[in-house]
Amino acid sequence: MSEKLAIQDCYPDDYAWCYGCGRLNPEGHHFKTYWEEDHTKTIYQPDPAHTAIPGFVYGGILASLIDCAGTGSAAHALHRKEGHQLGDGSVPPRFVTASLNVTYLKPTPQTVPLTVIGRVEEIHPKKWKVQLDVFAQEEKCVVGEVVAVVMPDTFIKPIDK
Amino acid sequence: MSEKLAIQDCYPDDYAWCYGCGRLNPEGHHFKTYWEEDHTKTIYQPDPAHTAIPGFVYGGILASLIDCAGTGSAAHALHRKEGHQLGDGSVPPRFVTASLNVTYLKPTPQTVPLTVIGRVEEIHPKKWKVQLDVFAQEEKCVVGEVVAVVMPDTFIKPIDK
Repeated sequence: MSEKLAIQDCYPDDYAWCYGCGRLNPEGHHFKTYWEEDHTKTIYQPDPAHTAIPGFVYGGILASLIDCAGTGSAAHALHRKEGHQLGDGSVPPRFVTASLNVTYLKPTPQTVPLTVIGRVEEIHPKKWKVQLDVFAQEEKCVVGEVVAVVMPDTFIKPIDK
Repeated sequence: MSEKLAIQDCYPDDYAWCYGCGRLNPEGHHFKTYWEEDHTKTIYQPDPAHTAIPGFVYGGILASLIDCAGTGSAAHALHRKEGHQLGDGSVPPRFVTASLNVTYLKPTPQTVPLTVIGRVEEIHPKKWKVQLDVFAQEEKCVVGEVVAVVMPDTFIKPIDK
């Protein structure tokens, strides 16, 4: 997968500071989401500190993983719909999360890489729904749903100024 | 508030390693949830690294804050229902998250402390629902719902062993 680009490799610099997936945030998780056939894949090895109870992954990290995999999946899908592919010189869209639902099916072990599979549905040209399943090895531990919207221009203007 | 105890000050040591709220996790966020009259309050100042887009808080941190404020609120409520108060020598229950729903109403500014107000409803003696509102100063930026269950004994046995 070394030559393949993640959507997060291609976000514009101004939008690449996300604590979850921004390549320019030195302290962040650096989640990376790839397109595969008809779905996305995000693989992440939790840090030893990312504990709920020792041995199991903290739910907030799992929610974070689902959040960024969700917006990344939507960005992949809209970019592809518009006829582009990563690395062709075009700038992919940047989505933000409108809502995030996470159901924890069972405790998620902390010592194996997690795989998130995302499946995307367009519900409006600028609003996409993503269903995400989080697996530890073959075991589905968490499911999530993200409603992601193309970032409005107003997002980058602080609300209290 | 210096003499007042947070629920997270009173979790048993084995359950105090949570990356979100564990007092024993040196790398965690150390969220602290207090009981006030008929609701809970959790105040948190996001770290400068916790960025979505520069100037605004990362949604995964907001989800994490809601997650731990939710389980902490449920633990407060059940402990009080059982006739205890923090610091009386009794051990409060430890809840885990069954589901987490977060709706992002508007971008959350990163430079002010966030206040989470939690309101608890018992839906079963071991299963509680918590509604949480996240405010940046007076502005409600995020709302969440956590369904929390008393941690089952099986949680601490790794599933793949």
